[in-house]
Amino acid sequence: MSKENRDIEKEYTNEQFVAKLRRLADDIEAGENFEIQVAGERIYVPDRAKYSIEHERGDGEEELEFQVKWKIEG
Amino acid sequence: MSKENRDIEKEYTNEQFVAKLRRLADDIEAGENFEIQVAGERIYVPDRAKYSIEHERGDGEEELEFQVKWKIEG
Repeated sequence: MSKENRDIEKEYTNEQFVAKLRRLADDIEAGENFEIQVAGERIYVPDRAKYSIEHERGDGEEELEFQVKWKIEG
Repeated sequence: MSKENRDIEKEYTNEQFVAKLRRLADDIEAGENFEIQVAGERIYVPDRAKYSIEHERGDGEEELEFQVKWKIEG
């Protein structure tokens, strides 16, 4: 069964964000599937995920995005 | 002088991405402005940056984005 579509964004304090980053780094380094809680849902991240960084600048704003992407397997 | 608009994305290996995440976590924790190199440009991130995590699911793909955003000051 596939899960519902979702697009949710949650702001975190510096301390919370730092903790999430370190947890993510540890999990990726372990080289296994892992889970991460984001805005009330536990997300399952497979070890086949791809990692990229995006940098956008425009309209008076600048943004860095540390992206973790994967295909959903049927 | 304002810098040019930009939208660039670069894929990293697991090891590179983990190193970038840890560097980012350390820099945010230090509570000061910092710089990070992304796809050949050194990005200056002010300590007023906001931190959020976005989760998207749809079209057979799933994505987590760890976002660092800030307004460009004139």
